[in-house]
Amino acid sequence: MKKILLMAPGPTSIPSQVLLAMAKPVIHHRTEEFKGILKEINEGLQYVFQTKNPVLMFSASGTGAMEAAVVNTLSRGDHALVVKGGKFGERWDELCKAYGVNTLTLDVEWGRAVDPSEIESALKKNADIKAVFTTLCETSTCVRNDIEKIGRIVANHKAVLVVDAISGLCADDLRTDDWSVDIAVSGSQKGIMLPPGLSFASIGPKAQALMKSSNLPKYYLSYEKALKSLAKTDTPFTSAVSLIYGLKESIALLKKEGLENVIKRHARLAKATRAAAGALGLELLSKAPTNVATAMVMHAGIDADVIRKKLSADFGITVAGGQDKLKGKVIRVAHLGYCEEADVITALSAIEMTLNRTGHKCEPGAAVAAAEKVFAE
Amino acid sequence: MKKILLMAPGPTSIPSQVLLAMAKPVIHHRTEEFKGILKEINEGLQYVFQTKNPVLMFSASGTGAMEAAVVNTLSRGDHALVVKGGKFGERWDELCKAYGVNTLTLDVEWGRAVDPSEIESALKKNADIKAVFTTLCETSTCVRNDIEKIGRIVANHKAVLVVDAISGLCADDLRTDDWSVDIAVSGSQKGIMLPPGLSFASIGPKAQALMKSSNLPKYYLSYEKALKSLAKTDTPFTSAVSLIYGLKESIALLKKEGLENVIKRHARLAKATRAAAGALGLELLSKAPTNVATAMVMHAGIDADVIRKKLSADFGITVAGGQDKLKGKVIRVAHLGYCEEADVITALSAIEMTLNRTGHKCEPGAAVAAAEKVFAE
Repeated sequence: MKKILLMAPGPTSIPSQVLLAMAKPVIHHRTEEFKGILKEINEGLQYVFQTKNPVLMFSASGTGAMEAAVVNTLSRGDHALVVKGGKFGERWDELCKAYGVNTLTLDVEWGRAVDPSEIESALKKNADIKAVFTTLCETSTCVRNDIEKIGRIVANHKAVLVVDAISGLCADDLRTDDWSVDIAVSGSQKGIMLPPGLSFASIGPKAQALMKSSNLPKYYLSYEKALKSLAKTDTPFTSAVSLIYGLKESIALLKKEGLENVIKRHARLAKATRAAAGALGLELLSKAPTNVATAMVMHAGIDADVIRKKLSADFGITVAGGQDKLKGKVIRVAHLGYCEEADVITALSAIEMTLNRTGHKCEPGAAVAAAEKVFAE
Repeated sequence: MKKILLMAPGPTSIPSQVLLAMAKPVIHHRTEEFKGILKEINEGLQYVFQTKNPVLMFSASGTGAMEAAVVNTLSRGDHALVVKGGKFGERWDELCKAYGVNTLTLDVEWGRAVDPSEIESALKKNADIKAVFTTLCETSTCVRNDIEKIGRIVANHKAVLVVDAISGLCADDLRTDDWSVDIAVSGSQKGIMLPPGLSFASIGPKAQALMKSSNLPKYYLSYEKALKSLAKTDTPFTSAVSLIYGLKESIALLKKEGLENVIKRHARLAKATRAAAGALGLELLSKAPTNVATAMVMHAGIDADVIRKKLSADFGITVAGGQDKLKGKVIRVAHLGYCEEADVITALSAIEMTLNRTGHKCEPGAAVAAAEKVFAE
């Protein structure tokens, strides 16, 4: 018998009550009963996004909602600033280029957060930049960018600030309205504790204004269609009914715990995991760590992918490996979504045992002890 | 106590074993275990689509897969022929126009199938047409187009044939390869007996060739990305894991019954429903009826939407109303997906009672009797 423990930065574990809610018989999506559910969800999403502005929902994975942010704000030949410090910053760049948007990229060393003042000087030098694309948590490097500072800077320019909060939402604080984030994008399979298949975008007034001049082609991902439907508590295309049943349940769970507590829980789990890495003599990749996941750099000569595979084969624990230039070098241990202290302890104990079995000798219990100390604070 | 019976052309009822499969704990989408599921599903989709060509899967509703068919085959300024005989023909037209594709439309009277010879003469007159967009079942009018004949015609031209089989698949026969359908698009919440949230597209060699010259912008819906991932039994973006669990189960159910029997079942249910409409003195809207749903024209002075709402309020039965110019004039009773004789009998009995309660006097039991006669054949 092996229990399955998902400690990768998405998909994350789903609470049983959410799984069971999704097993309810499907009802038609254009009924008063379903409208009632949508109304509750729309308000719940505003709570989770910390915004008074509309939050749109797409039946698509997070990349769909990222694409929507590009095609609904910009026009062919427009200029955008893209923060590129990992895989998901690169995705913004690829998306812009696919639509003929010119990008100026801020290349940030993998593992570091972007320096907000670089955004400021790029905006000053390039008055024609219409949008700044960045990430809250750059999942590939486990870096959290300082969206508060970035927001303060971008608010003084004509450009909109678009934040990929796909993995970050609910784990790292994101005060969408207070921090002047014009579009925040997220997905269902992360902090929201749902299976993959839904994605979301909060749309502030500056973004809604820019929308009007955007001429990039769109249909399925059109904000205009989605906003019109939202005003009638509807969706433009058939809703993913069962995922939405689950979403109602997971929003209720987030509200019950309270968003502030949810974020504090993630911060505590992340701090414990970092302390544990230190106790194991493992360097952290991220110089600006997120609450989403912790990237531990393996010692030279130890293949991180072997560690990752053994964690799965021997202990049923899924962690993520490194992507691209980080392949084989790091494991990324997520503490995201439906995750508590016991899950972190289980994963850390398994990591200790796995390291000892693969040539990285460490003191049994050292990582767990370090985490326990943080939990005792 | 009121049992819920979905008799609308999507979302349709879901078998309990499919609902429960979706409640299983989520596993990571990039594991050997999940690859095994994807492999089974990819083969199963080929079976259901009656094709040897790849069938791509998108985390998106059917419209997303329709949009993908446009953006992956055509270029800005290209010419396309669109069969417009209802809401979903119109959607092809809107999608093409959103991307700057010039459309020549064949306007077909709502309720009639397109005359394939009109497609032939349009193609002869307009040698620059690169794609023909039509529907297998035009859900808004309950019409089935003769894809076999259309396929034979389009095969002789350079244009690709793209068929919206979103509601039609599994209900109306669609011999994708034998009938030279280059792209067939479908969705999860219809004959495939899943909740909404997934869509599919089979891509034949002629479409794969055209793909190479297409310059319309795409990213999330890119066939190239999806085909590359499919070759590695992967998906380009995070898979909708729980819906895919369900899909594995529903494909197993379709295989167990046998696709031919599934289609025969739909044909029998449709025939019985049409016979019942006749017994109630109700005209059928469709002159070329599909197996998906039956559109019954209400008598003058009777508001079809009142009938529809009473069926829901009094009997827990969801049927669809008319869209656009058909609003208030028809009810569309679907017999689609997880639907058997007893469901049709239940719906017909409720329709009889509802008609009698709203001014359209009819013989109690007449519709049911007519259906029973068909079932006895």
